[in-house]
Amino acid sequence: MKKNKKVNAAILIIGNEILSGRTQDSNTSTLALWLNSIGVKIQEVRIIPDIEQIIINNVNELRKVNDYVFTTGGIGPTHDDITAESISKAFNLNYEIHNEAFKILETYYKPGEFNEGRQKMVWMPKNAKLILNPTSGAPGFSVENVFCLPGVPSILKSMIGGLKNEIVGGEPILSHTISLKTVESEIATSLTEIQKKNLEVEIGSYPFFQAGKLGVSIVMRAEDQSKIDLCSSEILELANQKKIQIVNR
Amino acid sequence: MKKNKKVNAAILIIGNEILSGRTQDSNTSTLALWLNSIGVKIQEVRIIPDIEQIIINNVNELRKVNDYVFTTGGIGPTHDDITAESISKAFNLNYEIHNEAFKILETYYKPGEFNEGRQKMVWMPKNAKLILNPTSGAPGFSVENVFCLPGVPSILKSMIGGLKNEIVGGEPILSHTISLKTVESEIATSLTEIQKKNLEVEIGSYPFFQAGKLGVSIVMRAEDQSKIDLCSSEILELANQKKIQIVNR
Repeated sequence: MKKNKKVNAAILIIGNEILSGRTQDSNTSTLALWLNSIGVKIQEVRIIPDIEQIIINNVNELRKVNDYVFTTGGIGPTHDDITAESISKAFNLNYEIHNEAFKILETYYKPGEFNEGRQKMVWMPKNAKLILNPTSGAPGFSVENVFCLPGVPSILKSMIGGLKNEIVGGEPILSHTISLKTVESEIATSLTEIQKKNLEVEIGSYPFFQAGKLGVSIVMRAEDQSKIDLCSSEILELANQKKIQIVNR
Repeated sequence: MKKNKKVNAAILIIGNEILSGRTQDSNTSTLALWLNSIGVKIQEVRIIPDIEQIIINNVNELRKVNDYVFTTGGIGPTHDDITAESISKAFNLNYEIHNEAFKILETYYKPGEFNEGRQKMVWMPKNAKLILNPTSGAPGFSVENVFCLPGVPSILKSMIGGLKNEIVGGEPILSHTISLKTVESEIATSLTEIQKKNLEVEIGSYPFFQAGKLGVSIVMRAEDQSKIDLCSSEILELANQKKIQIVNR
């Protein structure tokens, strides 16, 4: 793993069902937690409709300014699954039957079950690299730095294992959270001072109201544990001075 | 309500905690369900970090191509709450104390409790229009077609009521869902035919695996109920022909 190299990614969620509010996206959180743990920072997430030209434009914009782009959704067998064809057009590649994917699904399904709908799932950009799917057979794929995954959360989760050798992260982003029994406005000014003294630590402040508990979680994120430790000690000192209780969440 | 007018919106989620995967966004779904019900279609959602220049660029890009832009997050009292200042810069407006907001919070808090941290929440773009907050006092605000809401989901929900007179929708987008006990590949080809015959209905196909049930939800969306009804009848006919059971979800 290369030290001190910043590695960035974007996530492109393709799906009318998220934009309509019908379905709540959970793939961002799944991908972000995994990517952070291997030192890849998510710069941006976009949720866009199932419209070919919009997919093409966003893929081409995001892949130029990020080390990796992950798309979710639109790789199933139905008419509204247009990700593979759109990615082909974004890269000016033929959209064609992928022989390896064809063999995988031919073996996966019982004889006679590999019907026209299912065969749509082996159409991909020419020479795409497969991302194996241990849950439901149909693979995802990657072209250069763009990785295309399904929208169904449980299937997406099962495919992350197969991506692990493909993604090279930088220095992992470490984080530490201290939760305080207080309200944000009570600590805002002191926290601003602590942030100014600890510029290499990204300090986030998040109020919570949960199970009758009210408080603020202070999240510190940095690449260097010693910098997080120093910042933590200043926050604990602040809590001590103001007689604020530390809470477990 | 104007008939046949298309009204579009974008949502801009401002928050490192969503990009890190620590918090799962639910505000998109809350806003989208409400906006859809009043005939405003979400074209795009972007999730971006708490970085001033990125907020400015995204606000300025999205507000030009959408009737409305809704931002969530970054309007609290702490150092990482930079939405109001960023919006001021995006519109080239002074960032200053908003007298009406000041009066609201001065009344809301007990004497002596309206401290420096809380006073930060009354700094806004000059002449911003307030969005009242029945939950926790501190108002959101709007400038032209950009509406700035908090990130905490329960507070955001409570503020939608105050927005209702500000947002003028078009023809409401109607939807109807039929859930079938089948798999997508079984109906994919027929569904493509039905989509081709019903161009004014957006047909989405979403597999589900839930409580031991496996199936596909077919979601039809259109502005015209009679077109949805026609499309529904064709899907029911397809289910009948293929002896596929309809399921309740």
